[in-house]
Amino acid sequence: MNNFVFRNPTTVYFGKKTEENVGQIVAQYSKNILLHHYGEDVLRMIGIYDTAIKSLNDAGVKFTELGGVKPNPRLSLVKEGIEICRKEGIDFVLGIGGGSVIDSAKAIAFGVPYDGDVWDFFIHKAQVQETLPTGSILTLPGTGSETSLSCVVTNEDIGYKGSVDIDVIRPKFAIMNPELTMSLPPYQTMCGTFDALSHVIERYFTDVPNVTVTDLQCEAVMRAIIHIGPLQLDDPQNYDYRAEIMWASKIAHDNSLGIGRIVDWTSHILGHQISAVCDLAHGASLAIMVLAWMKYIYKQHIDRFYKFAVNVFKVEPAAMSRELTAYEGIIRLEAFIKRMGLPTRLSEANVDASIIPEMTKIFEGRTHGAFHPINKDDIDKIFMLAK
Amino acid sequence: MNNFVFRNPTTVYFGKKTEENVGQIVAQYSKNILLHHYGEDVLRMIGIYDTAIKSLNDAGVKFTELGGVKPNPRLSLVKEGIEICRKEGIDFVLGIGGGSVIDSAKAIAFGVPYDGDVWDFFIHKAQVQETLPTGSILTLPGTGSETSLSCVVTNEDIGYKGSVDIDVIRPKFAIMNPELTMSLPPYQTMCGTFDALSHVIERYFTDVPNVTVTDLQCEAVMRAIIHIGPLQLDDPQNYDYRAEIMWASKIAHDNSLGIGRIVDWTSHILGHQISAVCDLAHGASLAIMVLAWMKYIYKQHIDRFYKFAVNVFKVEPAAMSRELTAYEGIIRLEAFIKRMGLPTRLSEANVDASIIPEMTKIFEGRTHGAFHPINKDDIDKIFMLAK
Repeated sequence: MNNFVFRNPTTVYFGKKTEENVGQIVAQYSKNILLHHYGEDVLRMIGIYDTAIKSLNDAGVKFTELGGVKPNPRLSLVKEGIEICRKEGIDFVLGIGGGSVIDSAKAIAFGVPYDGDVWDFFIHKAQVQETLPTGSILTLPGTGSETSLSCVVTNEDIGYKGSVDIDVIRPKFAIMNPELTMSLPPYQTMCGTFDALSHVIERYFTDVPNVTVTDLQCEAVMRAIIHIGPLQLDDPQNYDYRAEIMWASKIAHDNSLGIGRIVDWTSHILGHQISAVCDLAHGASLAIMVLAWMKYIYKQHIDRFYKFAVNVFKVEPAAMSRELTAYEGIIRLEAFIKRMGLPTRLSEANVDASIIPEMTKIFEGRTHGAFHPINKDDIDKIFMLAK
Repeated sequence: MNNFVFRNPTTVYFGKKTEENVGQIVAQYSKNILLHHYGEDVLRMIGIYDTAIKSLNDAGVKFTELGGVKPNPRLSLVKEGIEICRKEGIDFVLGIGGGSVIDSAKAIAFGVPYDGDVWDFFIHKAQVQETLPTGSILTLPGTGSETSLSCVVTNEDIGYKGSVDIDVIRPKFAIMNPELTMSLPPYQTMCGTFDALSHVIERYFTDVPNVTVTDLQCEAVMRAIIHIGPLQLDDPQNYDYRAEIMWASKIAHDNSLGIGRIVDWTSHILGHQISAVCDLAHGASLAIMVLAWMKYIYKQHIDRFYKFAVNVFKVEPAAMSRELTAYEGIIRLEAFIKRMGLPTRLSEANVDASIIPEMTKIFEGRTHGAFHPINKDDIDKIFMLAK
């Protein structure tokens, strides 16, 4: 186990009707906030708009609304939000939505006190030192952004998703009511669920020895997601399934499962690039890329993939060679993705193989990943496996 | 899953040599602190004294020392600490030690700003509203007090251990270097390890349905402790074993495993009473009481104990009835406790059965526990099973 520092300061208010207290909760931090979301119509469809507005008004919290967040949130809207906050003297950003909204809220919040271009942070030209506080009402679990130190934004001018990962941007609170996720369409639900699973997978595949406690915990959370995730398709109104997945998604990315390990994140980097170029949902991009990445590298990491197959997918090891057992784990994951109704290949997501060179050119001259470092040549091969 | 609020704000600095930065870390909060511990001689034996003093001096942190903490920390020393803090204008308490030191540090810290008798908090005559900030260098893992909301102190005048459990008393930071635990004697190591296991057990046994994610996580942490805990006996200088148990102990009691559940704590209440009357180590008292409590109640909770047997101790269910399978889990736990060198009965801890009435009289007219509520009559029977 490597040395590490662990912080997990976001307060979670979890359960039925918790969104009714958003005004009181926000008022602990600010009385003049930016209310950031997809749009009033979407929030009304979820059934959260009136409740949130009433609660903020009752608590005497003044708010300025900025809707219009799209999946894979755009830099242009972030910049608009920064301007509004500066003009209105706003000192808190509340996001109501999923990871896109929360990431956009985070970017606005750390953009406000910064004199330069907020994109500087995403290309590592500058490091976030300070931020307005943020909080959220979560309506789509999966990204884990509600308590994480991560923020991903798409620069639509150059077709690239950049990310900021630093402790100071963790939100002050997350309000998580599973009831608010019941109206999500099946595809979005499964994209979120796979995103959560992928956050554990990215951490699980490591070469750092003696991480038994977190290995077992990773396996526990993956098994829970694999067991319960697809049940949401059969019974979308089931509170308990929604609650388990919502909590699993939080744990999957609060980094309690990544402590003391060197983690990989290659699948995310590649998946982000598909989403940036083709505007494919994050979870769907990940499903394709996790599979292709696994198929490309597993033979060089038989021990870990064997463990994944046996402990997570309960592959019976006795009858097979270790390599075949390891591979069977990947095949089970593929079947699981199909059961979720997510694509396992680019073609199933209507992404034509002819644009692979356009997607991968950005990786020229760079290497990625820690568990299995890859370069542009490897990335081209992984994309070909995914086509 | 029940509604819940979850906070886990303590920053953990984990790994080799992390104690060398204690001065810098403390200086973020205060330059005038109480340094609370067992005694200079004990800290020298552990090899932490000079390092800590140098680091505090280098960071310009003024400190007043108060040593003399004993296992099952005493109210009288807490009161002494409160007086010193008030007199010296101290606004931070740093504990160097195990759960006893940290609990004593917490009690001093919330006693300072309170006008009344600090014992009021332990008998629920008052609720802690504010506290000085605290932090620790952990030298004995097990209690989880380094990041928990709990504080247990013994009032030696009346032979009773009282506890305070409230979010505001969670420490600001915990410095956790597994190397500092290598010199612990086997008995103390195993007491701490069993304490950690018991914190998961107290949370695992619940009637709240649909807590799959935390059930699986509880099972994961219990399996890790059961697997790795005794290895510390065979190889006390093994960093990795010490690190795994130190982290497992933290998770076991930061309440991430208790979310959304109604938890029990009967074994702790009964164990505390043995420790208060007989001054037996906390972990040893718990080992005796967890076993006796399980034997007393399991027949009325076959499903949960079956799950415990099969998922934690990997009891083969096929050959047995569900009740026998459930019981086999308890028998395996008993064998595990013996392997750890801990007592399974009061007699093995040289506690004479004749003092049982003295120990249990305090429970007259009260009920305890949530999973399986018990009264004085039940408690007498549990103690008889433990004799």
